[in-house]
Amino acid sequence: MTNKDARTPAFSQDEQPIAGETSPEVGKSIGWHKGYVEGSRPDLRVPVRQVHLTNGQSVTLYDTSGPYTDPLIETDVRRGLPPLRESWIIARGDTAEYAGRPVRPEDDGIKHTSPRGGLRNLDAVFPGRPRQPRRSRDGEAVTQLAYARRGEITPEMEYVAIRENVSPEVVREEIAAGRAVLPANVNHPEIEPMIIGKRFLVKVNANIGNSAVTSSIEEEVEKMTWATRWGADTVMDLSTGRNIHTTREWVLRNSPVPIGTVPLYQALEKVDGRAEELTWEIYKDTVVEQAEQGVDYMTVHAGVRLPYVPLTANRKTGIVSRGGSIMAAWCLAHHKESFLYENFEELCEILAAYDVTYSLGDGLRPGSIADANDEAQFAELRTLGELNRIAKRFHVQTMIEGPGHVPMHKIKENIDLQQEICDEAPFYTLGPLTTDVAPAYDHITSGIGAAMIAWWGTAMLCYVTPKEHLGLPNRDDVKTGVITYKIAAHAADLAKGHPGAQEWDDALSDARFEFRWEDQFNLALDPDTAREFHDETLPAEPAKTAHFCSMCGPKFCSMKISQDIRREHGGSRAEVEAGMAQKSKEFAAAGNRVYLPIAD
Amino acid sequence: MTNKDARTPAFSQDEQPIAGETSPEVGKSIGWHKGYVEGSRPDLRVPVRQVHLTNGQSVTLYDTSGPYTDPLIETDVRRGLPPLRESWIIARGDTAEYAGRPVRPEDDGIKHTSPRGGLRNLDAVFPGRPRQPRRSRDGEAVTQLAYARRGEITPEMEYVAIRENVSPEVVREEIAAGRAVLPANVNHPEIEPMIIGKRFLVKVNANIGNSAVTSSIEEEVEKMTWATRWGADTVMDLSTGRNIHTTREWVLRNSPVPIGTVPLYQALEKVDGRAEELTWEIYKDTVVEQAEQGVDYMTVHAGVRLPYVPLTANRKTGIVSRGGSIMAAWCLAHHKESFLYENFEELCEILAAYDVTYSLGDGLRPGSIADANDEAQFAELRTLGELNRIAKRFHVQTMIEGPGHVPMHKIKENIDLQQEICDEAPFYTLGPLTTDVAPAYDHITSGIGAAMIAWWGTAMLCYVTPKEHLGLPNRDDVKTGVITYKIAAHAADLAKGHPGAQEWDDALSDARFEFRWEDQFNLALDPDTAREFHDETLPAEPAKTAHFCSMCGPKFCSMKISQDIRREHGGSRAEVEAGMAQKSKEFAAAGNRVYLPIAD
Repeated sequence: MTNKDARTPAFSQDEQPIAGETSPEVGKSIGWHKGYVEGSRPDLRVPVRQVHLTNGQSVTLYDTSGPYTDPLIETDVRRGLPPLRESWIIARGDTAEYAGRPVRPEDDGIKHTSPRGGLRNLDAVFPGRPRQPRRSRDGEAVTQLAYARRGEITPEMEYVAIRENVSPEVVREEIAAGRAVLPANVNHPEIEPMIIGKRFLVKVNANIGNSAVTSSIEEEVEKMTWATRWGADTVMDLSTGRNIHTTREWVLRNSPVPIGTVPLYQALEKVDGRAEELTWEIYKDTVVEQAEQGVDYMTVHAGVRLPYVPLTANRKTGIVSRGGSIMAAWCLAHHKESFLYENFEELCEILAAYDVTYSLGDGLRPGSIADANDEAQFAELRTLGELNRIAKRFHVQTMIEGPGHVPMHKIKENIDLQQEICDEAPFYTLGPLTTDVAPAYDHITSGIGAAMIAWWGTAMLCYVTPKEHLGLPNRDDVKTGVITYKIAAHAADLAKGHPGAQEWDDALSDARFEFRWEDQFNLALDPDTAREFHDETLPAEPAKTAHFCSMCGPKFCSMKISQDIRREHGGSRAEVEAGMAQKSKEFAAAGNRVYLPIAD
Repeated sequence: MTNKDARTPAFSQDEQPIAGETSPEVGKSIGWHKGYVEGSRPDLRVPVRQVHLTNGQSVTLYDTSGPYTDPLIETDVRRGLPPLRESWIIARGDTAEYAGRPVRPEDDGIKHTSPRGGLRNLDAVFPGRPRQPRRSRDGEAVTQLAYARRGEITPEMEYVAIRENVSPEVVREEIAAGRAVLPANVNHPEIEPMIIGKRFLVKVNANIGNSAVTSSIEEEVEKMTWATRWGADTVMDLSTGRNIHTTREWVLRNSPVPIGTVPLYQALEKVDGRAEELTWEIYKDTVVEQAEQGVDYMTVHAGVRLPYVPLTANRKTGIVSRGGSIMAAWCLAHHKESFLYENFEELCEILAAYDVTYSLGDGLRPGSIADANDEAQFAELRTLGELNRIAKRFHVQTMIEGPGHVPMHKIKENIDLQQEICDEAPFYTLGPLTTDVAPAYDHITSGIGAAMIAWWGTAMLCYVTPKEHLGLPNRDDVKTGVITYKIAAHAADLAKGHPGAQEWDDALSDARFEFRWEDQFNLALDPDTAREFHDETLPAEPAKTAHFCSMCGPKFCSMKISQDIRREHGGSRAEVEAGMAQKSKEFAAAGNRVYLPIAD
């Protein structure tokens, strides 16, 4: 690792003051700052995390944390983030503002029959700048896929090219081929564009969301900023409780990353949880509502078809996807084909007008090791392949969701089949969990599967927190989930040989070998915890420059002995061998007596 | 999962009262007890963990926790555990007690030059029953390998056959072929025998040990019992500080699992940390000292040969193994071939006389992603293959240690080469860590690699705790490390299709599907944490029988919908299809009106 910027060698750095010194929110870390890499225009500035090492070198890391970690930008969750992409969207001239669908009390789960009536929690309504929704002028596609197909490199594409350290043309090609998506609703100008595809860095999604049982708007917004601070590339708002519309508005206006949702959850709230009362009209209205707010990608369980439902009856754990079970219940109740499947083309038209990306849900994913790779799962996958091709006709960007619970030896079949059936559309998997026996540790059971499936080609990993199967994640759980999945993603980047990925490991290992403790901490995925663990055993400040650590103590340190070997015998292998030959001669000349104690 | 005992169908159960009710140390769990499966003789009783489900069924799990979790056995760390195997060892008639090597102050790291002189910390000396060491009568091998080769099935072999649910003959064959080891020093009669080999359940080792900087005897004994309580199959005492001999004595006398050590660490203490002052005589004396105490397996870094040392000079992180760096320093200081390599045959004779198992150390393992699978590492591996064949001539059981830091795409080469070069001797790997960038989370970076390499054939995994690279693990770290590695090991058992492995997952998933929360907790790898996490969101007792959880709330539960589907349409797929056809007819007969809302 050198001063040469590992990820973005071609671009100049616009350096800012050290972030950590002025922003306690980003942890106790010092020695790094928020930098920007400029693109071909002044309003195209890609954020990076620039780590400054004590040896004078620096390392540039991908940064998902948004303006919150830039001390020069004053953020205020009541105003929302600056609309970074707005001028790009307007300049394209293919969208226009319109009045939009009126927001109704029932959008927030408040029924007209509610005794108190009207919008409760009015003070929770997002107070930021007034905005009108925007959609394509003529109902045609305004998607990154449509642009890419006609050869246009948008500012969004250039932005992600800089982030990924590849050429903009590679980005355009991957999007045009449907092998990557760039989720960016025209109504979500606040995001810093990112790309999801196997040719690029593996991404991580963090789920947040309240439920009928617990949690508040403030908590969800805080979880979102907290998740992105630790590296979440997208966030899904899976709220199902009260204030579902308003919570989403706060999250969207303050999110630097694309936001995903499952519109079916809100639609179900609108019919008071009675799946059989769902209709295509209610669903469609909800999709429009969320598209107008700026949701960047939507999970749509259109692959849960009527004939597949009986395939789940003999399963160990039936249907474990909420969306999948709602659609199965609807199909059975009406004994009709899914209204999502039947109306899929109309849905494509809506998504195309806002550039909402499909995340075709795997409603029949296995919920246990016993159910992995079964007939129900793969029947749905084949339908997702069919829907993917329809979506592409409408220029709608599309990714495909995957399991779930899968033992290690059955993981590869999942990605191989998905890539084949879905024309290499990006795979977006939940884990998979490689065993069922460790509730409270499912970030780990699934981190194992996530790393493997990402190595083999999954483009984005949906995190699993320690609370999976047990409760809603709190702030600590969100952090643990994100860090675990950043590990899985980066391990996969290494295994895929992603250019530049290993330079991060090398920089940290160099720091470790040279006992540059502060550099180790600052380069760590979680500097705060690394520093804290070190200080538990050797808290004194001098210990951070000591040439040993608490594991072996001063006399006994292998790194120190290695350094002695290198110092004694020169830096390179040739020098070492030459040095040893010389020593050997001295050894003989001295009458084969021991000639050189190496330790102190 | 049925009442039929999954792992041990052929044996009757000797059931005891519920353990959890009388022993707070085993956690808040109720609903399980310590059971025993009897073998062919009354003194051969194999412990199991019998989980009693609320539906009347039970599940039998492998149990490493020793007598501590049996409320009918009164344990006292000052007396040590009962010598379970003593009568078996005596009955073989091939060993005899002898005076043994006198224990000297310097065995505890106390120098004759010490101002106070003599044995300090005398009160720390283990007060249990007096014992004399034992060794083979004629200097010949008294190893399980020797017995297996001449066709004998020892009580130890029968014991592990019951534990693994295989025939004793399979155990004998695998040991005889050198594909498995049964570490069981004749001076460690307290252990409950276990086996390490790819044909059997993947095992987990936990490292404990004080260092010059921190920690006490009591802490180390407690870490050992704590580690085995959570599932550690063996424990390595890697102490390097004061009281090294006495700490080991306490650990050995109280351990229900085999204990491993690295004798080089203690030998180095005896020369005050000066590697160049080490001699074969000091090392050999230390091996005898530890063999007489009952150490079951010893890491020996005899593969670090003089010509390999220069191969490490250009590495990112040089030599990271403590043992490896000590031997490298010695070789360079004297410019001589390693005294361990030169005297390996004599060492074999000593180990054979006590049935100490070799763990041939990988002193040149990579300490960073950059150094994985390099020339130094594989040069040493080839030497370990050579040493393995020598050890087998002396009937010494042998396993081979492996890395370290290895990116995912380079893991398989490690196990494949090791199996080829070392004639399928059991591989015993540290992780491997799949990235260097996450200090404080190296249980996870390595758990990923551990699961994969175990799937591909590694027989035992050496755990890594969150404190790796940062400090000495405390009690919580030990638990986290063990649980993480039990997950990796079990995920591998599943992927290998180990008979019975999936029944545990199935039982837990059944409990999950049927909302039997208490059964989920009791079946979990860590019942305490699973229960605690659940209670954080839904603490009330009725929530543990509720047919929903905090993630979705009562209206919205996919498991509940699945159950409705199954109830509505019968249990089997045929029934469901028949049911649906019937419904379809009703549907037509009713004039295609919606006929059956499924949700309440």
